[in-house]
Amino acid sequence: MTKAEIQFIRSLADKQVRDTERLFIAEGEKLISEILDSHLRIHRIYALDGVLKGKAEVVTPKEMERISQLKTASNCLAIVEQPRFNTPTAAPATALSLALDGVQNPGNLGTIIRLADWFGISDIFCSEATADCYNPKVIQATMGAILRVRVHYLPLADFLALSAKEGTPIYGTMLDGENIYESRLSANGVIVMGNEGKGVSAECAQHFSHRLLIPSYPPERQGSESLNVAMATGIVCAEFRRRTK
Amino acid sequence: MTKAEIQFIRSLADKQVRDTERLFIAEGEKLISEILDSHLRIHRIYALDGVLKGKAEVVTPKEMERISQLKTASNCLAIVEQPRFNTPTAAPATALSLALDGVQNPGNLGTIIRLADWFGISDIFCSEATADCYNPKVIQATMGAILRVRVHYLPLADFLALSAKEGTPIYGTMLDGENIYESRLSANGVIVMGNEGKGVSAECAQHFSHRLLIPSYPPERQGSESLNVAMATGIVCAEFRRRTK
Repeated sequence: MTKAEIQFIRSLADKQVRDTERLFIAEGEKLISEILDSHLRIHRIYALDGVLKGKAEVVTPKEMERISQLKTASNCLAIVEQPRFNTPTAAPATALSLALDGVQNPGNLGTIIRLADWFGISDIFCSEATADCYNPKVIQATMGAILRVRVHYLPLADFLALSAKEGTPIYGTMLDGENIYESRLSANGVIVMGNEGKGVSAECAQHFSHRLLIPSYPPERQGSESLNVAMATGIVCAEFRRRTK
Repeated sequence: MTKAEIQFIRSLADKQVRDTERLFIAEGEKLISEILDSHLRIHRIYALDGVLKGKAEVVTPKEMERISQLKTASNCLAIVEQPRFNTPTAAPATALSLALDGVQNPGNLGTIIRLADWFGISDIFCSEATADCYNPKVIQATMGAILRVRVHYLPLADFLALSAKEGTPIYGTMLDGENIYESRLSANGVIVMGNEGKGVSAECAQHFSHRLLIPSYPPERQGSESLNVAMATGIVCAEFRRRTK
């Protein structure tokens, strides 16, 4: 590999460079094979000798270590074009969507993209303060779901305001909400999840039409326990899908 | 700090040393404050100047970086005694428990301990191949739940065999299981979750009395999507608690 090639790949660890180049890095044989079978365009694949034969440029383990963005270098790495899709100004009226207001941990974002895929949710609408879905840690955590779920970045409060105005239900999860198991849930709408520490911002929360609570067990217990945001998202999505199948 | 002190703390990154000394490391003000309020015994607390005043020995940022077991050093670190509790030979007959058959990712184990706390599950029974609950990454991921949930390590297949013999329902999650939303669930029993890649071992699975499936959406879809083991555990526990409250 040339020095310039290595430098270019390493520069893609930076969100600004990724945005300008409209590229991202994927690592690992399983993920790259899935991308090869998908609609996404791959610019280049680098692999250790014997891996993805005929599809990749062979590099040495030392070169792979220099370009890998994981703690433990994988045996192959691809430079992939970010997918292009239209971002609507309001939520799809008949589908169930997710909105993330400042989820910052890349592992949490990756897990949420993966579970959206599991629950047949096609769109995730993110505030600008949310982690970048092309961050290498997010890509790895999605386990290929990034190929099937569209992740949009936009001014989230405006988006929710317009969606609410069009009559789309906006669901928030709050500590003072109504027990989700005793609430009416619709087959369409937006489920809004907030930042790991601060929750949902006031400017987004004002557009909630429903406030839901996931009860702990037993429900009357007052403790210091809490649910991770990705876990809460999964439990809420499971309940929506169970009721509206 | 003396060189020996630093070396001793660093040696606690190793499971064998932790087991012999019956100690573990906790980092961060929130977690250490919770431990101070708990029944656990703390051997020593080290903190940067101004943190946990009067309760900790003051160390320099450089020393903290040397002893910290996190990627980004916290501002305080405690050496804590591992709790002692009895491990039963079979599952509690009237409670809901979790069993983990080789969950290896420390983040997954930490998340599962945290959600057990949320759902009022007091005991987690782990095969010896499961990640160590005193691993620093697990401790940090539990967010204090490690103080309230008992994590046992034992020969899991024998434990399940005896529990089944005593009539305790043993629930497994399998791709060819019965839709959990159409299954009868009891208020007591053991929910068994498997390894991230290989699932549950045959020697444990033979003791299942119920095989459950979490349906994806739409249920008839055949895709490459999958659920993370911690996420699956959360969704299953939520459903047990919803139905048996």
